[in-house]
This record gives sequence, structure tokens and C-alpha cells, in this order.
Amino acid sequence: MPMAQMDNQAVTPYGTDHLPCRRAVVATETPLVLDCGQTLSHIPVAYQTYGRLNADRTNAVLVCHALTGDQYLIEPHPMTGKEGWWIRMVGPGRPIDTDRYFVICANALGSCMGTLGPREVDPATGKPWGLRFPVITIADMVRVQALLMDHLGIERLACVIGGSMGGMQVLQWAVLFPDRVMSAIPIACAARHSAQNIAFHEVGRQAIMADPDWHGGDYLTNGAQPTRGLAVARMAAHITYLSETALHRKFGRRLQDRAALGFGFDADFRVESYLRHQGITFVDRFDANSYLYITRAMDYFDLAAEHGGVLTGAFRGSPVRFCLISFSSDWLFPTSEVRDIVHALNAVAADVSFVEIESDKGHDAFLLEEPELFAVVHGFLDGLAQHRRVAPL
Amino acid sequence: MPMAQMDNQAVTPYGTDHLPCRRAVVATETPLVLDCGQTLSHIPVAYQTYGRLNADRTNAVLVCHALTGDQYLIEPHPMTGKEGWWIRMVGPGRPIDTDRYFVICANALGSCMGTLGPREVDPATGKPWGLRFPVITIADMVRVQALLMDHLGIERLACVIGGSMGGMQVLQWAVLFPDRVMSAIPIACAARHSAQNIAFHEVGRQAIMADPDWHGGDYLTNGAQPTRGLAVARMAAHITYLSETALHRKFGRRLQDRAALGFGFDADFRVESYLRHQGITFVDRFDANSYLYITRAMDYFDLAAEHGGVLTGAFRGSPVRFCLISFSSDWLFPTSEVRDIVHALNAVAADVSFVEIESDKGHDAFLLEEPELFAVVHGFLDGLAQHRRVAPL
Repeated sequence: MPMAQMDNQAVTPYGTDHLPCRRAVVATETPLVLDCGQTLSHIPVAYQTYGRLNADRTNAVLVCHALTGDQYLIEPHPMTGKEGWWIRMVGPGRPIDTDRYFVICANALGSCMGTLGPREVDPATGKPWGLRFPVITIADMVRVQALLMDHLGIERLACVIGGSMGGMQVLQWAVLFPDRVMSAIPIACAARHSAQNIAFHEVGRQAIMADPDWHGGDYLTNGAQPTRGLAVARMAAHITYLSETALHRKFGRRLQDRAALGFGFDADFRVESYLRHQGITFVDRFDANSYLYITRAMDYFDLAAEHGGVLTGAFRGSPVRFCLISFSSDWLFPTSEVRDIVHALNAVAADVSFVEIESDKGHDAFLLEEPELFAVVHGFLDGLAQHRRVAPL
Repeated sequence: MPMAQMDNQAVTPYGTDHLPCRRAVVATETPLVLDCGQTLSHIPVAYQTYGRLNADRTNAVLVCHALTGDQYLIEPHPMTGKEGWWIRMVGPGRPIDTDRYFVICANALGSCMGTLGPREVDPATGKPWGLRFPVITIADMVRVQALLMDHLGIERLACVIGGSMGGMQVLQWAVLFPDRVMSAIPIACAARHSAQNIAFHEVGRQAIMADPDWHGGDYLTNGAQPTRGLAVARMAAHITYLSETALHRKFGRRLQDRAALGFGFDADFRVESYLRHQGITFVDRFDANSYLYITRAMDYFDLAAEHGGVLTGAFRGSPVRFCLISFSSDWLFPTSEVRDIVHALNAVAADVSFVEIESDKGHDAFLLEEPELFAVVHGFLDGLAQHRRVAPL
């Protein structure tokens, strides 16, 4: 059940105070030093929780969301009204069972759903941060989540789980805070962003920055929105989330609302109409600058880089119990990339299991109805509860 | 050797009369009826030829170019100064040997290098066609090429060859004019454009049309150019021309002109810098509306559609000798799509050979140094000359 809590309903022209969610402010005493060298303090964090924390605080599960995700796991999105993005995974009796676990999901640093990001107001200027916001990393996102855990009095997480960029955060948690993570389930991710993925992100960023309504990042104060550029960015990205097989099955060359080719530039094909819809609806819920910052954080992700380019160095001596999951038709984060992580974990004799799930749904499979995914997560968390003695509620 | 011929050096504000190439005007007596139902007459066609036509006119090879290609096979591009796009394939002693064959390459209908397209002036208005140009198909392109062959007095081609959209034209030639084609070499193509490929094209078109400088297609008369949108379209497309392996080998996560991450939105990574360069240089040589029209023609390509969705129907009784070529790392036109054509040809007992070339260069392999590609084309044309008795010069 959602336990949304409105701490502040005042709607500012720029901010996200109107969103219904829990809120915390972290880094209030000591500023957070970011990877870029800049500091941030008094960082607002928007989050949701589900279930109850047990007496010895051992049943907390942190869910990390993907690029354009948010903290609304199982309740409708407050702007789109669409169902929570992981309603199939989280809830009473679900694989991440809220009758057993206390589930937390926080909006990522740099995003636009209530946690500090370029859309929020910089107290120093009274205006949105825009491009004056520091460039952040996946590690910075994780550090903010760790501060939120401090705030909630959770020393150690039973599990950190997430797909795509969420999976990157899971890996980063295990590397940065191995003693605060009993188990980690990185799904459909990689230990570093590939050249091809950087390239796709760069196309999206260039599409946004090419839109005159972007105004060098200051669109909010100019009363504008780079909706066309952001829509194009989303369209390009969306193709990478699906498999060719899924696109063929869903759309093939079927026409949209017509019996014959239109010989024009309207959406003749259903796949065009679908993509346009993806682009148009995205701009209603997402901030263009956040898209720039978060894609950049993913581009920068390279777990091995801090260990002389050797991934094993990141995991040596890790006490974390890992369960890695990939999908056979995911070409954005192919199984081979997940396997590289598994090999590194095996090389340091870490506690690791790995499942490649046969699916033709592409990268997005982690968000969809994938019974095997649910079974794997359920089984792994069951085993964890027995072995690590997660206290019952 | 190039045999460029300047028929008209007058530079108009809109047209392409200044380009050094051979020119013909076709459909002068009977208008060409396009697939969309509209007609075009007095169609200018820009082309190049290499080698000499033999006495019985049996040694002509037609090369069909790809989406953004042109007629300059082996001489420098007149706008960019870059070497001809198939200089490795065509020339004296090359696989398509100009000491033996008379090679013709014509700019495609709808393109922007001298053949009729949206950039050319519509005599009815005295202004560029822009979006008033009819939507064309691959078959329309081929019909114009056939009219050019009539103009040149070539009844039957020894071979039609091309990669990507060029390969689509080759297939279309074999289907539309089986008796005018002795042999056909479709490379890295498909019998229909896939949903994923339509999706990528749609992203490019939306990027162009989102650019305010596109002016609803009338940018030329507005003194503008949708350069930002066209550059984004090119960037997105360019990723699909390479393989993940090629991108990784060429760029990996290497940085561009810097020792450490820049924590900004400049091009940190070489792959970003490379892509931006691809986008920026493309707008100097290509017309945005042509990009819309030609991608649309590719989207519409579906050889089976006219035969009740059964591809064999397109090839039944074909006298053409086929040699199909795919590249193992091509994910835009994967081997599986080429195999579908081979199966259809086998089913109607056509004369067909098929080679999948092991390459990690992706779709672009057909333009690059691929010794096996050259060997296959050379061998096939040799066999053709012997079996079909192409007369020597």
C-alpha cells in the first residue's frame, strides 16, 4: 500500500513541492562532496516507503530507479496517472513482499520528481539551477541515498535492487558501502557505459540542446520548454529499450488508422505513431535538463576506472551476496556485459548467482510481466531471509 | 577514371546545376506515373560513368547508391572533397573493373545531387519543390534509372549492384525489369524495411521537422537551413551504421583531448566528438527534405506487399542471376533478413548465391576495406562474363 505523505503542498512556479511523497533533507550538517569536487548541502530527497521497518531494522530493501524513473513504485504517477512502474514486483505477496520487507524508493539526485536536481530552485539565486547544477555521477546518487538511510536510521540494507541505471546504482552501493548492503540485485545493467550507449545518449542531449526553447538550459525562467528536442531524445532512446523482435511483434509494418500508405509524412506506420506518442507524453512528466544530467551520470559510470581499469579491484573482499540478472534480447545492456561483472565477482570468490532470462522484450523486460524475473527475485530474497535471518515483522 | 562533364555551370540560388557531372532529362515524352499516383515529367538525372560501353552494349553495370550517397563513385565529392564512396570497388583492376565494364551511377530520384528532388526548382512555381514534391518509392527511383538506361541506349544491364538502399534498388530492378538485368548483387539490405528501421528513420525525420529552421519544408525560400535537426538525424542514423564492436574498438570510453572527465556537457568522450563531427559535416552536403523523402521511400519498401505478402511471388520465373551479400555484424540489415530473400529465391529455383561476410564493421562494411567483399564481387562478375559472354571491349 502506498503511504504517500504530503509534507508541503505549496506549488512554486519552478519546484516540485506539490508532488505527494515523503521528503527528507540530507547533508544538513556536513556538505556532500561530489565526484566533480563541488559540494551540495541541504539536499532535498523525495521518496516513498512501503511496508513496515522491523524492530531490529534489518528488513529494509532499497529500490533504485532507472533514467526516467521515479519513487512511485506501486501507486499511480502523480502527473500521468499511470500505474506505479514496479507494481508487478513490489507489494503484499509480490516478489519484493511488503508484508515482509520495508521498501524504500527515492527519486535520484539530478532527477525532477522532488529530489535536488537542475529543475529545483538554487537558494543562492532564487532561480532554477539549470546548467549551474553540478554534473553528478552514479556514485553521487548513491551517496545521497546513503544519507537518506542515515536519516531513516537504517544502518544496513537487506537488499538493494534496480534495473538499468538502477542496476548501476546497485553495483555502486556494493562497491561504496559493502558493509551496508547484505545483498544486491543488479538487473539489466553493466559495470560501465558502452561507447554505443554513450553515443545514443549524446544524440538525445544534442536533440535537447538543439531546441531553441532550451535557452541554454534556462527555459524555465524563459517560460519555455524544449519539448520538441526532449521528445526526439525520448524517441531515440525508446527504440533502444525494445528488441527488434518486440517491435516486429508489436507493430511490424502495420499501418496506423489507414488501409493504404499515405504517401506523406504523417505517421503511416503504427510504430511511428507509437514512438511519437512516447515522445509527446514524456515531455509532460520529465525535465529536459534532468535528462542531460542523468544521461551524463550514466555515461560517466565505470566501476573499474577507480581500480586501474580492473573490475575485480572494485569487488575484492566484498561481503555482499549478489544476484545478477540479464535478458537475452537486451541489446542496450546485453548479457555479455552482465557476464563481465559475474566473471569479476567470481574471480574474487564473491557470493554470486547469475540468471539470463530468455525474453524477447528487450531491455524494458525488467519493467514488464516476466514471470521468471519475479521467480528469481522472490527465490533470492527468500533464501536471503533464511540465511541472513532477516527478522520477521 | 572519372569522366565528369559539366553541362551547365550556372549556379542558381536553389538548384544543383553547378555540380560537375553528366546530365540527362528523362520522361520528356511520356510522364512517369509514380506509385503515389502523381506524375513527373522532364526529370533531370545527374549521373557519372566510368569505362567504355562495348559495341554490343552488354557490359554496362549500374551501381545504386545508399540513402545519403551520390553518383561520385571514384572521384572526389565536389562539395566535401572526400574520395569517391566506392573507390575501393570500382576502377581499373578493381572488382568492378572499368577496363572491362561500363559503370554507371545515377543520383537517386528525391536526392539532392542533381537528380530531381525536393531541393530542385519546380518549374510551375519557380521555387524549390520542398514538401510539394511527391512522396516517392524505391520503385520510382528504379523507374527513373530505367529511363536513363533507355536514354543511354542500354537495353540490358550486365549487373545491378548496390548496398543498403542501393541493395533495395537492386532487388527492385530484378522484380520490375527482370529481362533488363543479367545479374544482381544486393548487399546489406532487406526485402522490406523493418519496424526498428522505420522507427530510427522516424526519429531522424522528427528531429528535422522539430527544427524551427525547417519552416515546414520551405527553408530554402526562407534563407534558412535546419542544420541542427539534420545533424541530430544523422547522428542517430550513424550509430546504426556501425557495430557495437566497431564503436568499442574505435572509441571505447577513451576521452577526447583531455586527461580526465570534464564534468560538463562538452564532448568528453571520443565517440561523442566523432558523432558530433558526423552530424555537423553532413549538413554541408545533404538536403534536409531529401532526407525526409528518401527515408520515407525506404520505409515504404516491401517487395512482398505487391504479391499478397509472399516474397516468392516477386521472384517467380526470374531469369536474373543473384549474388546476395550480408555482413555478420550488420544489425540494421542483419543476415537473417538477407537469408529471407535467399529462401524466397531458392523456393522459386532462381539462380542464387549468398555469402555472409564475417566482419565486425557493422552495416557500413560495404563501404569499407573488406577484402572478402571485393573477392566475392570480383569472382561473381568473372563468372558472369564467362557464362553470359559479356563481350570484351
